[in-house]
Amino acid sequence: MKVSVHKVQMNAPNDISGLRTVIESGQILDPNSIVAIMGKTEGNGCVNDFTRGYAVSSIQNYLKSVVTTPVEKDKVEEIVMVMSGGTEGVLSPHLTIFTVEEALMSSPNEVAGLTVGVHHTRDFLPEEIGTLAMVKVVAEGVKAAMESAMLYTGDNVHFVQIKCPLVTSSSSSSTSANGRPVTTDSYKSMAYSRAASALGAAVAVGELTLDQITNGTICADYSLYSSVASTSAGVELMNCEILVLGNSKSSMSEYVIGHSVMEHALDTASVERAMPSNGDKIVQVLAKAEADPTGRILGCRHTMMEDSDINHTRMARAVVGAVLAGAVKDPMIYVSGGAEHQGPSGGGTIAIIASKKKE
Amino acid sequence: MKVSVHKVQMNAPNDISGLRTVIESGQILDPNSIVAIMGKTEGNGCVNDFTRGYAVSSIQNYLKSVVTTPVEKDKVEEIVMVMSGGTEGVLSPHLTIFTVEEALMSSPNEVAGLTVGVHHTRDFLPEEIGTLAMVKVVAEGVKAAMESAMLYTGDNVHFVQIKCPLVTSSSSSSTSANGRPVTTDSYKSMAYSRAASALGAAVAVGELTLDQITNGTICADYSLYSSVASTSAGVELMNCEILVLGNSKSSMSEYVIGHSVMEHALDTASVERAMPSNGDKIVQVLAKAEADPTGRILGCRHTMMEDSDINHTRMARAVVGAVLAGAVKDPMIYVSGGAEHQGPSGGGTIAIIASKKKE
Amino acid sequence: MKVSVHKVQMNAPNDISGLRTVIESGQILDPNSIVAIMGKTEGNGCVNDFTRGYAVSSIQNYLKSVVTTPVEKDKVEEIVMVMSGGTEGVLSPHLTIFTVEEALMSSPNEVAGLTVGVHHTRDFLPEEIGTLAMVKVVAEGVKAAMESAMLYTGDNVHFVQIKCPLVTSSSSSSTSANGRPVTTDSYKSMAYSRAASALGAAVAVGELTLDQITNGTICADYSLYSSVASTSAGVELMNCEILVLGNSKSSMSEYVIGHSVMEHALDTASVERAMPSNGDKIVQVLAKAEADPTGRILGCRHTMMEDSDINHTRMARAVVGAVLAGAVKDPMIYVSGGAEHQGPSGGGTIAIIASKKKE
Amino acid sequence: MKVSVHKVQMNAPNDISGLRTVIESGQILDPNSIVAIMGKTEGNGCVNDFTRGYAVSSIQNYLKSVVTTPVEKDKVEEIVMVMSGGTEGVLSPHLTIFTVEEALMSSPNEVAGLTVGVHHTRDFLPEEIGTLAMVKVVAEGVKAAMESAMLYTGDNVHFVQIKCPLVTSSSSSSTSANGRPVTTDSYKSMAYSRAASALGAAVAVGELTLDQITNGTICADYSLYSSVASTSAGVELMNCEILVLGNSKSSMSEYVIGHSVMEHALDTASVERAMPSNGDKIVQVLAKAEADPTGRILGCRHTMMEDSDINHTRMARAVVGAVLAGAVKDPMIYVSGGAEHQGPSGGGTIAIIASKKKE
Repeated sequence: MKVSVHKVQMNAPNDISGLRTVIESGQILDPNSIVAIMGKTEGNGCVNDFTRGYAVSSIQNYLKSVVTTPVEKDKVEEIVMVMSGGTEGVLSPHLTIFTVEEALMSSPNEVAGLTVGVHHTRDFLPEEIGTLAMVKVVAEGVKAAMESAMLYTGDNVHFVQIKCPLVTSSSSSSTSANGRPVTTDSYKSMAYSRAASALGAAVAVGELTLDQITNGTICADYSLYSSVASTSAGVELMNCEILVLGNSKSSMSEYVIGHSVMEHALDTASVERAMPSNGDKIVQVLAKAEADPTGRILGCRHTMMEDSDINHTRMARAVVGAVLAGAVKDPMIYVSGGAEHQGPSGGGTIAIIASKKKE
Repeated sequence: MKVSVHKVQMNAPNDISGLRTVIESGQILDPNSIVAIMGKTEGNGCVNDFTRGYAVSSIQNYLKSVVTTPVEKDKVEEIVMVMSGGTEGVLSPHLTIFTVEEALMSSPNEVAGLTVGVHHTRDFLPEEIGTLAMVKVVAEGVKAAMESAMLYTGDNVHFVQIKCPLVTSSSSSSTSANGRPVTTDSYKSMAYSRAASALGAAVAVGELTLDQITNGTICADYSLYSSVASTSAGVELMNCEILVLGNSKSSMSEYVIGHSVMEHALDTASVERAMPSNGDKIVQVLAKAEADPTGRILGCRHTMMEDSDINHTRMARAVVGAVLAGAVKDPMIYVSGGAEHQGPSGGGTIAIIASKKKE
Repeated sequence: MKVSVHKVQMNAPNDISGLRTVIESGQILDPNSIVAIMGKTEGNGCVNDFTRGYAVSSIQNYLKSVVTTPVEKDKVEEIVMVMSGGTEGVLSPHLTIFTVEEALMSSPNEVAGLTVGVHHTRDFLPEEIGTLAMVKVVAEGVKAAMESAMLYTGDNVHFVQIKCPLVTSSSSSSTSANGRPVTTDSYKSMAYSRAASALGAAVAVGELTLDQITNGTICADYSLYSSVASTSAGVELMNCEILVLGNSKSSMSEYVIGHSVMEHALDTASVERAMPSNGDKIVQVLAKAEADPTGRILGCRHTMMEDSDINHTRMARAVVGAVLAGAVKDPMIYVSGGAEHQGPSGGGTIAIIASKKKE
Repeated sequence: MKVSVHKVQMNAPNDISGLRTVIESGQILDPNSIVAIMGKTEGNGCVNDFTRGYAVSSIQNYLKSVVTTPVEKDKVEEIVMVMSGGTEGVLSPHLTIFTVEEALMSSPNEVAGLTVGVHHTRDFLPEEIGTLAMVKVVAEGVKAAMESAMLYTGDNVHFVQIKCPLVTSSSSSSTSANGRPVTTDSYKSMAYSRAASALGAAVAVGELTLDQITNGTICADYSLYSSVASTSAGVELMNCEILVLGNSKSSMSEYVIGHSVMEHALDTASVERAMPSNGDKIVQVLAKAEADPTGRILGCRHTMMEDSDINHTRMARAVVGAVLAGAVKDPMIYVSGGAEHQGPSGGGTIAIIASKKKE
């Protein structure tokens, strides 16, 4: 198994020129080696952000045009696509493309390399979203993705990206007589879904045990959190799509990943803590951001929660994006909003993919 | 002369509780020792930001209520009030209060201390705003403020804050037959006024000479800039109000100031360069911010100029505010938008007030 | 009793020039005859709208400067001030000033005239806000205001404006061991407070009976509503301030009021239904607006609820403001957002003050 | 020639379910009969509105999937697609689809029917955009479109929709040595392009003569305007795409069109004036909207120009959309922003397509 990472700029949500370049130049020899694409697109990252769907549709159309057989076209649909809206401030729209190629290894590497695993869970009923039932299914799904990545212990997992469903007005009305969704407010259901997914990841990697979690702790007890989860809800699916990144000696990758948490939005030291090891060259930063719900940061009042003109998730991305881009001197990083149970309250998870230093 | 600096939090634009505390507690013994107040208020920092006026009106009402004689009440009106709207991201609403007390000194200090000077220029005609004529008057005004601060060479000047007028629809219609304003667009005239004021400061401190500047270079040739100017336009005045900060051995202040420029919005190293000297404790950071007008930062596309939902000046403050607050671990700093000729294009000026390290 | 109505334009939240004109010109002979001022100010009408407070502070400062005795200055504080933020679209910032003068009447008028009553309730505990307990206290308060307006039956009441409190993070933390507020989310508590206040008004004027209302119906069963209530929540008070407008033969006013409801935001015919009688000249329209919570209007999808860039209350005011201003050809009307239990769901209450046609 | 009009709702920018229904149900028998589609999509209608492109791409993908031959697929690309972003307030996202079928007529109709003509001009150089040169080319193009619609005099033309190019930073840098664009500000160049296009239409239909127009009158003398033009600029083309609607006795259409102008945003009477004739049933309203640039409407101040949180074009659409939807009781109408030289200043053009009353 040989895992590679390609990062390309986007000039618009439908701009596939960067993807085309890495394919036409042969950097990606086989488009069907792509297993996942994570992107930042330039919408508002909130309910009426159509840049995510536009990007996915543009990428799929392009990839289907460069493969030849119907089987290959079907495989394009299976690529895990995680588009995160919102490039506020200095954040720069881009795609991070993960490829996996078969590779023969005579013996395990001395230094572990980046490995990738994906899994699609079953569909959820509206009344399951944001509940303990979802936590359990996600936990199993993350374990399955870990296995496909040859990651057999949670210690080697550094990032778990989960795309999860939400309760829409149409789906909530179709719930069975037995069940009622946690909330019928679409925007809120996104938070519950992200929360349950994050807690599921925490269980899978061993950060929490299932008996610590009840329906009452979801979106309530933020002392329970995962240090590796990054979850985002979207209207376009009813199941969870899971992408696990970690390090394995069975991987021939020249890349490696590390992680940490940001204790708060200005925690610049988290970058150093998340570095896989000294001397590596940072390729990508993956982080979650949120406006501190207490309304204070480092003891001072912030106004993000009371600004009725700009959604606080937008400002949180601008802040954490600027802080991390300033630290690594690269604005083409992945910072996504809504960090329920993903890192400490007011902070968030952070992972760094680096290319290994040359010996 | 003894200059002191007090920084207090604001819970709303009309919240004078912090100011009241420093007065009632005796930290400021005489309200009439206040010469200038710089504040960050929580409006949008753009045209319809009424938080600036509300703060000024609330502060003046309060100060007039704590002094006793009519002469003292009149002196309240003379305090230079620079309210900058916009506390996007982590920026925390606050006031920085400068006081000057008479003090006897037997001999000059070994180490120079913070000194403050103020000056009010004459009113400008609408057709002068943003022109070479304004540059000249401002240059003379800054020199006058420097003298009142006992700063006789530009080298010792580290920060020149100028509040300047703009062209309104009513003022532009009253222009004489001889003259036409540079622009009749109010929003644009703010940029021209800030630009001419900044260039005036550059001339006063010797960074530029008058013959380098023509009407054609204002808001056009951004290779010409001041490293100490911070200018902001407001509808409430037709003259310029100037506040100069520098260091002088004739000042007994326990504070000291330094400055530098940010080369770009992510220039975290600028903080170290702006430090007065090693070991000092940072009290306040004063910086200007702008979205890089090329649409790129560190070679990557940013989307601030094309976001029609959020004004780019708001995002620029969020970014630079987060970067600097992250560097000094204090969100109660002064970051203001619109940096024409104030530091390099895409960057801005930065000054740091510190309390001297104890020997 | 002689009730008069004055409408003046505002050029900014702190612009009192219109008020000054009606006082200095003698249209209002005695500033202490002012009992209530309703205004539209140009903020966002949401949480961080400081134009309301700025307007109130500016008006109070001015009125205190034109009266002479301390008793009169105290009376200024008692004027009911209802500032509603948000002049989206064509809505034009203005003040509507209500004055009451003593007047001798030999016999009741043939045609009833405009009458005004005010009442201040007791303060509410945080845990009472938005509950049945609040409904009861408001109902009694509205009845008291009606009596002071010489309105002894609900039939003659056409408009009940109530300014009500909300639960803030500080107030919610100070609740007693016995009680918990309905919600600790400040923004939501505004809706609950408006809702309970509107239902209280409905009880007072006989539209509903107390036994129709439970804690469970508040903000839930919108088939229960008042046709005369207009309520708005504000952080600056813990009690309710009530202004009742109606018609009475005991009033010598040359003005008269009528009301109706808008069935939906495009219900232009509501203007005619709300007219006191044919031939009257419209002086002021007072209406409530909301984005239809079903997401549809006249069978078509609207996008106000999903627009994460602009709050739907802002768009609702723009829509209803344009529809009513287009109908009466006057943009200086009072349209306020958040219409829970105030008119049918998706619509709102509407009242029209007119000057009686000359016989 | 038989012209038909179909109006279908959109649930999202990429929702083609309405279009599919009219095709699968046989209301549109031949997809290749579609000559033009005008749509309202739910973006912000400003620079970073990607909903327009997403809709066009989704529609084209769908139409290409339902036709069979390569020639037919090519014809899909020729359909004039005018997507206008911005469904503020009650405006409801939808598509208006124009089809033209061959039809045998023994003799001209007694009553003229709706007719449609399209034309694509040559590409413009960046330095031509917004100039007299563009006016001339557009005038010829509109005449060509009129001829293809069998409209031989301007009297029978009621609506001229033009999609026009703008100056981008890349295109402006590629201008020849001889020419410089009117402006290098992309947002402003949109206004100049719309203006020159509107004036070109005015010349073609005989409202203005070419000698009334100079480069100096474009975007300056708004007393010169067309009563039938509706123009919108987009980054995706360098030529103009023209759609002309009018009435002709040679058309067998059961539809008919009329037009007028709105004198101001609250001109509700314009609907009646624009009606083709009494008794017809309104099918679609097509109107242009702008915030009155004087800052006043019906003598009262509006705040749309000074609101730095919401672009005034968004509010203008909300206002005119509400006023017209209120008048015709249909929120699924076409209201587009930016009305330079399209109707009187502060107002705009309005056209109404109706189905003829049955005899």
